[in-house]
Amino acid sequence: MGSSVEQNILVTGGAGFIGTHTVVQLLNQGFKVTIIDNLDNSVVEAVHRVRELVGPDLSTKLEFNLGDLRNKGDIEKLFSNQRFDAVIHFAGLKAVGESVGNPRRYFDNNLVGTINLYETMAKYNCKMMVFSSSATVYGQPEIVPCVEDFELQAMNPYGRTKLFLEEIARDIHAAEPEWKIILLRYFNPVGAHESGRIGEDPKGIPNNLMPYIQQVAVGRLPELNVFGHDYPTMDGSAVRDYIHVMDLADGHVAALNKLFSDSKIGCTAYNLGTGQGTSVLEMVSSFEKASGKKIPIKLCPRRAGDATAVYASTQKAEKELGWKAKYGVDEMCRDQWNWANKNPWGFQKKP
Amino acid sequence: MGSSVEQNILVTGGAGFIGTHTVVQLLNQGFKVTIIDNLDNSVVEAVHRVRELVGPDLSTKLEFNLGDLRNKGDIEKLFSNQRFDAVIHFAGLKAVGESVGNPRRYFDNNLVGTINLYETMAKYNCKMMVFSSSATVYGQPEIVPCVEDFELQAMNPYGRTKLFLEEIARDIHAAEPEWKIILLRYFNPVGAHESGRIGEDPKGIPNNLMPYIQQVAVGRLPELNVFGHDYPTMDGSAVRDYIHVMDLADGHVAALNKLFSDSKIGCTAYNLGTGQGTSVLEMVSSFEKASGKKIPIKLCPRRAGDATAVYASTQKAEKELGWKAKYGVDEMCRDQWNWANKNPWGFQKKP
Repeated sequence: MGSSVEQNILVTGGAGFIGTHTVVQLLNQGFKVTIIDNLDNSVVEAVHRVRELVGPDLSTKLEFNLGDLRNKGDIEKLFSNQRFDAVIHFAGLKAVGESVGNPRRYFDNNLVGTINLYETMAKYNCKMMVFSSSATVYGQPEIVPCVEDFELQAMNPYGRTKLFLEEIARDIHAAEPEWKIILLRYFNPVGAHESGRIGEDPKGIPNNLMPYIQQVAVGRLPELNVFGHDYPTMDGSAVRDYIHVMDLADGHVAALNKLFSDSKIGCTAYNLGTGQGTSVLEMVSSFEKASGKKIPIKLCPRRAGDATAVYASTQKAEKELGWKAKYGVDEMCRDQWNWANKNPWGFQKKP
Repeated sequence: MGSSVEQNILVTGGAGFIGTHTVVQLLNQGFKVTIIDNLDNSVVEAVHRVRELVGPDLSTKLEFNLGDLRNKGDIEKLFSNQRFDAVIHFAGLKAVGESVGNPRRYFDNNLVGTINLYETMAKYNCKMMVFSSSATVYGQPEIVPCVEDFELQAMNPYGRTKLFLEEIARDIHAAEPEWKIILLRYFNPVGAHESGRIGEDPKGIPNNLMPYIQQVAVGRLPELNVFGHDYPTMDGSAVRDYIHVMDLADGHVAALNKLFSDSKIGCTAYNLGTGQGTSVLEMVSSFEKASGKKIPIKLCPRRAGDATAVYASTQKAEKELGWKAKYGVDEMCRDQWNWANKNPWGFQKKP
């Protein structure tokens, strides 16, 4: 990943879990970074720790702005003040369960925010975007691994917003071919920066497996519910493709460099996964090994809409982005525990 | 269609073609009507003529507001000043060709506008909506007539916004069952009020068949391009389900009454069509008969994405809404010509 002549990148949702890790890597690669985040699902302390991790010199290349993409004025203020070379668009709500209970919030945040962003980017002729998509657009795939040209399907409002936004990106590029948009379909981001200073800090009850396991390990939650233990998998629990958040961060830098280097990139989707399927129970035992903590579990029925196994085909990203995941499950669990152990209450003080 | 104890209806896009005709019928049925329209695709003269048609007394029940659903403040201003019982949501862009060339405009107008509307309706606990959907959500149906439970598909950005908004409506109702939303899938609205004082007045080159024929008839356009004359239909031209705009207007009143009377309506789609397929060339000859004008035509190749034949199954609307189209093709052409003949330049003066 070649360094850049200080290109200026707007990172929406840059105070979040994947955002902060990507911002660290962007700064380390010589990019200038401007964050806009409404702190709906993050805290400004996370940005302070990014500064701490990259050091005082690179911190001067990082600007944080509190703002909400649903307010066009907040985006206008940024674009009218500086020229951006590209946008990495993380901002959006991402909890499946919450989206089923409150879909309006998801359509408002994820669709209105992104459409406003496109309108302002177009106005200021900044037409390069790396978009946070998700493997959720594969719905319940009949075969795995998931290849980028599979038929897409939404299983819940959160997934619907991601699918809608991919379709919107394709329509925009079809009409205005000068747009260059890379859709990164994350599989299951876990782990944390090796320093243990930044990591996933979900508000309320975690929706994802590893933050939940982590909170059981530090005593914030009593036990882990394992939804489904009769799946046709090696141990009956569901299989997913867990990917280290630092691999994911590097995937974004690789995508960014692809936007800058490939005039024919158009609007292209790439899976960001390891290509390995790991079951829930395997992750639990790896985490126990990494943390030395016993994780009590409760076997529960399957959840409606959950797929048996979802993992990525990784050839396209490797071939076209020159990117491949480096970290395995053990490192993911090691770094997840390191973050949890040092920050049992995330970025907050103990209540 | 029973009269109502002056329920107050917000009609978005009420200055438009279908909007004005529906407002006339709503007022005649004793509803109070508030219009919000950004006049993006209409003119305020159309509202003046609605007042003229319903007379001075009923005109006092009609309020017009210039406003844009993309500005939440414009919607907030209305809801904070009066209580609405239901919303009929017409507002949105609807030209297929334009949507392919400028999809961002469609996602901005149609999605952001509607999501803002839902948010404000929820805030003021007004949770009944009649939504303008379209037969375009049937994509290129393999079999006809189209039944409401067919698989849905978008063929262009305009169609995508309608499909997205139907999915959003279903998600909202699934999460908040107190919402009552009727999705009206229009087939091909044509014709005009029998007075000839209101009708379709598209800006620029018409996208739809009848306004195009109409402008050829009054000499504004030289000839009609017939896209496709080798379709497997009775005369080789494409077949559609043309419906008189007054039938469509009555369909909205019937839907509104259904919302008020049926606690179990939930989120339900209904076709508004005649169930009859009519070819382009048949419409041309009916219009020639009605107008006494010869319509020169030019046979052109098919347009990509156009279906061979699309017409409605009408049983569900008839059974559940108690609504059925009354007007045939001859009345449609009679009233279309009556409007065109009296208003060759639509609501505008001759340039």
